[in-house]
Amino acid sequence: MRLNADECLARLRVSEHGVLATVHPERGVDAVPVVFVLHGKDILVPVDTVKQKSTTDLQRLDNIARDPRCVLLVDEYSPDWSRLWWVRVHASASLLDATLAPSFHRFTVYREPGSIASVIELRPTEITGWAA
Amino acid sequence: MRLNADECLARLRVSEHGVLATVHPERGVDAVPVVFVLHGKDILVPVDTVKQKSTTDLQRLDNIARDPRCVLLVDEYSPDWSRLWWVRVHASASLLDATLAPSFHRFTVYREPGSIASVIELRPTEITGWAA
Repeated sequence: MRLNADECLARLRVSEHGVLATVHPERGVDAVPVVFVLHGKDILVPVDTVKQKSTTDLQRLDNIARDPRCVLLVDEYSPDWSRLWWVRVHASASLLDATLAPSFHRFTVYREPGSIASVIELRPTEITGWAA
Repeated sequence: MRLNADECLARLRVSEHGVLATVHPERGVDAVPVVFVLHGKDILVPVDTVKQKSTTDLQRLDNIARDPRCVLLVDEYSPDWSRLWWVRVHASASLLDATLAPSFHRFTVYREPGSIASVIELRPTEITGWAA
């Protein structure tokens, strides 16, 4: 069954993990796991200084600087398919400084000063969802 | 830590769920949850007749017909970040008929004749992985 906008937002609000897909000029598309928080009508994704950095982390920033179109998919999987659901957010991404870092205090590790280097802001253009 | 190719394949072999990101001409990217099986060096994604169809299901087929570049991200999330891992497969996708449907018999629902309409074959071009 389709989820309406309120149901989608309610599920995003209690979720913290999804997959962020961005446009890559040669590869076509990239996808990385992210954590996020809902912030008003926007979604915030931290760029942290905690997890060891790979080229992947820089690549996603290059991608959104070149093309801000992206998708966040939040997806609950279970071997019991009657419990499946997902919410998909098409969005425009932009890179902010760390001013909104306190938004991530639900993650203990991000309460540490300096743990957030910058913030990717996703401004939704379309939100759809489905539940079994 | 980076996972080598063998470690990535070992994790794909015991996984069954991921996110498939494809190129969309206007939206830039699409992302859908999928189940999959490893089949030799390829990855097979069913197009089934079981779950209620939405335009999403048709869209992913349009996308790969137009541009076969895609990414499958298989991602283990846990609030305990010492348990995180992911494997990412950049691949070229093509649509096959249902001949390989028996490959999906690990999913009980797909043992039903006619439950698989066609199969998306992902031919990996690059496999990378990471574990905390």
